[in-house]
Amino acid sequence: MTAKINFGLSCIEKLNKHATLINCPENHLKNLIKTDGRFEGFTLHGVNIFYDYSRQRVDVEAMNLLFELAEKKKVKQQFSDMVAGQKVNVTENRAALHTALRDFSNDPVFMDGNNVMPDIQHVQNDIKDFSAKIRSGSLTGSTKKPFKHIVVIGIGGSNLGTEFVSTALSMFSDRKIEILYLSNVDIHHFGEILSKINHETTLWIIISKSYTTSETKANETVVREYLKSNGLDPSKHIVTVTSKGSPGDETALSNRKTFHMFDFVGGRFSVSSAVGGVPLSIYLGYDMFERILKGANEMDQHARNEPVENNLPMIAALISFWNISILKYTAMAIIPYASPLSRLAPHIQQLFMESNGKSVTRDGKTLNDPAGYIIFGEPGTNAQHSFFQLAHQGNPFPIDFIGVVKPYYDKFKCHSNGVTNHQELWANLISQPEALATGKQDKHPAKCFEGNRPSSTILIEELSPENIGRLLAFYEAKTVFEAFLWDINPFDQFGVELGKTMASTYRKEIASKNKDSNYEFGKSNAISNFYLKTLFSGKLEE
Amino acid sequence: MTAKINFGLSCIEKLNKHATLINCPENHLKNLIKTDGRFEGFTLHGVNIFYDYSRQRVDVEAMNLLFELAEKKKVKQQFSDMVAGQKVNVTENRAALHTALRDFSNDPVFMDGNNVMPDIQHVQNDIKDFSAKIRSGSLTGSTKKPFKHIVVIGIGGSNLGTEFVSTALSMFSDRKIEILYLSNVDIHHFGEILSKINHETTLWIIISKSYTTSETKANETVVREYLKSNGLDPSKHIVTVTSKGSPGDETALSNRKTFHMFDFVGGRFSVSSAVGGVPLSIYLGYDMFERILKGANEMDQHARNEPVENNLPMIAALISFWNISILKYTAMAIIPYASPLSRLAPHIQQLFMESNGKSVTRDGKTLNDPAGYIIFGEPGTNAQHSFFQLAHQGNPFPIDFIGVVKPYYDKFKCHSNGVTNHQELWANLISQPEALATGKQDKHPAKCFEGNRPSSTILIEELSPENIGRLLAFYEAKTVFEAFLWDINPFDQFGVELGKTMASTYRKEIASKNKDSNYEFGKSNAISNFYLKTLFSGKLEE
Repeated sequence: MTAKINFGLSCIEKLNKHATLINCPENHLKNLIKTDGRFEGFTLHGVNIFYDYSRQRVDVEAMNLLFELAEKKKVKQQFSDMVAGQKVNVTENRAALHTALRDFSNDPVFMDGNNVMPDIQHVQNDIKDFSAKIRSGSLTGSTKKPFKHIVVIGIGGSNLGTEFVSTALSMFSDRKIEILYLSNVDIHHFGEILSKINHETTLWIIISKSYTTSETKANETVVREYLKSNGLDPSKHIVTVTSKGSPGDETALSNRKTFHMFDFVGGRFSVSSAVGGVPLSIYLGYDMFERILKGANEMDQHARNEPVENNLPMIAALISFWNISILKYTAMAIIPYASPLSRLAPHIQQLFMESNGKSVTRDGKTLNDPAGYIIFGEPGTNAQHSFFQLAHQGNPFPIDFIGVVKPYYDKFKCHSNGVTNHQELWANLISQPEALATGKQDKHPAKCFEGNRPSSTILIEELSPENIGRLLAFYEAKTVFEAFLWDINPFDQFGVELGKTMASTYRKEIASKNKDSNYEFGKSNAISNFYLKTLFSGKLEE
Repeated sequence: MTAKINFGLSCIEKLNKHATLINCPENHLKNLIKTDGRFEGFTLHGVNIFYDYSRQRVDVEAMNLLFELAEKKKVKQQFSDMVAGQKVNVTENRAALHTALRDFSNDPVFMDGNNVMPDIQHVQNDIKDFSAKIRSGSLTGSTKKPFKHIVVIGIGGSNLGTEFVSTALSMFSDRKIEILYLSNVDIHHFGEILSKINHETTLWIIISKSYTTSETKANETVVREYLKSNGLDPSKHIVTVTSKGSPGDETALSNRKTFHMFDFVGGRFSVSSAVGGVPLSIYLGYDMFERILKGANEMDQHARNEPVENNLPMIAALISFWNISILKYTAMAIIPYASPLSRLAPHIQQLFMESNGKSVTRDGKTLNDPAGYIIFGEPGTNAQHSFFQLAHQGNPFPIDFIGVVKPYYDKFKCHSNGVTNHQELWANLISQPEALATGKQDKHPAKCFEGNRPSSTILIEELSPENIGRLLAFYEAKTVFEAFLWDINPFDQFGVELGKTMASTYRKEIASKNKDSNYEFGKSNAISNFYLKTLFSGKLEE
């Protein structure tokens, strides 16, 4: 491909054209990875994260075209606008300032002419103070016993990010206070939590920005009932994280304390706010939470300042765009070769699929193909024993492999087959991307591996709070960059509204029947009527 | 479509032709679900499971064509052959007799002329006896204390099914003995387990059919080291589940006891064998395990005996075939509206993707399109707050919704918004399939819902061991039926071999370097060399 031939074509046309070349057998990954300087040219190292895209189905020309696209879409400028407090969430007329939550520069960040930093710092100081008191035991439950469990009540953005971080860093906990998550409205989830706690020594952290989330409200109701039935004072056992003035604010509700969330931080980007801050500071200590924020901030600055061709989340976003919109893969897997990162995939699944699973551009035009893709994943090597059969021989999907260079846990370094557990893990981490890329021929068709399956490998040196912060911010920035490449707004989520409206209708039907057992289900259709009736009969009729 | 027009076309051609009709706007799901008798015609009830496919994008003609396909492919006959002990795993010349593990009929099941039932019953009696002794405390660890924790060491098929079942039925545990899973070779996983157990009161159950699985062997080595360092006798704290004569058999190894697995049961189908039997019988009691088996057996008989058009897993398999091979969806989600079913999706992900993620037919011909698809899922309503934005407005994917009519946990039935938690859960379970199917128009494009997104709804009456067994066997039979529709062998997994071979190469490189720090990494390429060096340096060099 020369500049001449492409002259006059749009970026996307050029990319599509180039894809036909990449799809030729001579550009099979087994050949691409052997080209001169492949490793040096297709790896990046920044803010303590190593990113290897040498096993992606790109060449220099593809990357140049993608860089051109990033420039044309002004992706970096849009990111800077976001960080600077502009209302990039256009459909809801809001800013998206999750980056300000970890800005320790002492520079003001203005939104609508007001500096948001003092409010952010106020909440942080509050968290610091409160978490220290809980950890020291100077703040207790209503029977004067120190807290031994915290239960986060929240769903989606109110729990997935925090759960990822607390799982990733659990080895830094002194285990004096355990953390649990009550997300599902299913009463079995509450029952399971009860089997693990003692009522006197449990603090409930209820998280909902609007404080109207039905699941969270329902679970709060159950918890208040539970506390009362045990003779405990809810105002000593419940704190909330919510917007100022919401129905869950301490001024409106009898609870111990409220930590405020801000309009300019979306749920799925909120782990750096009080949403993550309160539980993580109690579980790990505020210092640890601050170290997470500092790591995230480094990545934010990298994403904002590094030129496109040297920018980790930008390259990762461009690769995703290439894989999805040009090469037409429909899903991506995240496979961390680290057991503590087991909750990374569910968090990124929400972060990305809720942000970018959209059919319209930010200015309301319908896209030819919907944006977004399915993200799923399990830790390696577990995933190898689960769905890697399909990864190797079924419909291909790109993979992010993630490795940790140095294990935190340094006991029991005994050898099996001549290697330690950590080395065994790495033997697999090294092998899988290579096997997927190169494939292997065999005279028996069932033993043939087509190869040409793309992946990236991301390394962090160790499971430190800073690195977890960097990883979080890496995927946040990648998600936002991808949205900008697709011209969509990653900060709204109108797609969840229809289900909510319908649930509200059926909830009313059910509530009416609760009040009056003679109530006849009205507006619903035959199918839904069956389910309503089954719910009330408690039986499956043959 | 009339029979005349289709005359002479193959089943697949007819299905493809019919798909063009289904893809017409007038056959949008919002219209299909309103057709006369839709609910009655597209729901099934059998063996205490209700299956509603009225919101799938099929009509009577589509179903008739699919039934024709099932007949043509002799799917039921093949299932009967499997149950009868024929060597349906042709590439490995083995039978696939997981159904025999739950056959209580007293009829013989012959393989190679030998009745396999006595061996199965012998192992079951062994499990019954052993688990009772552990539960009563008459068998103890080496310091004479009764066991309080069991840790299952196994990966893939050796843990996912058991983990699903133990999570689904945890409310039936008396909580005297807790169950944990050590699957990942990552040493952090072992460290996490240690933070939860006491060495004196823990029994380790090591599960590997061949006893050559590297991850499991590595974890076993670590456990033996750990037991020794605590002055405990491994032969009192370790039992194994493995093939007769394997390196992990009690005759070969110093362990307390071995329970045998059989060649004719594949890992991902093995939860009914000693793989699930030993841990589940200790955790829940043997009676509960037997009730699971009896439920599974009912579904096996249903799958084998019911005519195609009345056969739950068959209909479900035909719908999958239609969705994937004809309508070209690339993924499917499993969304149980029940917190205890949170590990169902990871189990089915393995069961299905490892069974059917294949590119060749059972007789070695390459398929035009690879079979299989991606399966992922989280419980509802959690999933609604995670990836349902994309489900409603991004690229569509079919969904299995699963509901439980009656909650097991019956405390705290207080109301929020006029409904109980269970009712709130159901208001959502009722709404989502409807919202996905019907969609909604709006003058604002971001608030438009295209609808036409297919789903099934599966109901069980309660979370009983029988119903969990039925659900397990439902997905097992569905997986096998789908394989037969695609003409593939669901019982081999050659796709995982290349990665294993490569890992073995790199393991040797690492072991050589462990022995001699001057060893130079040899045969590997520049990319993998970097990873090997990084592993040994323990650092990410800038």
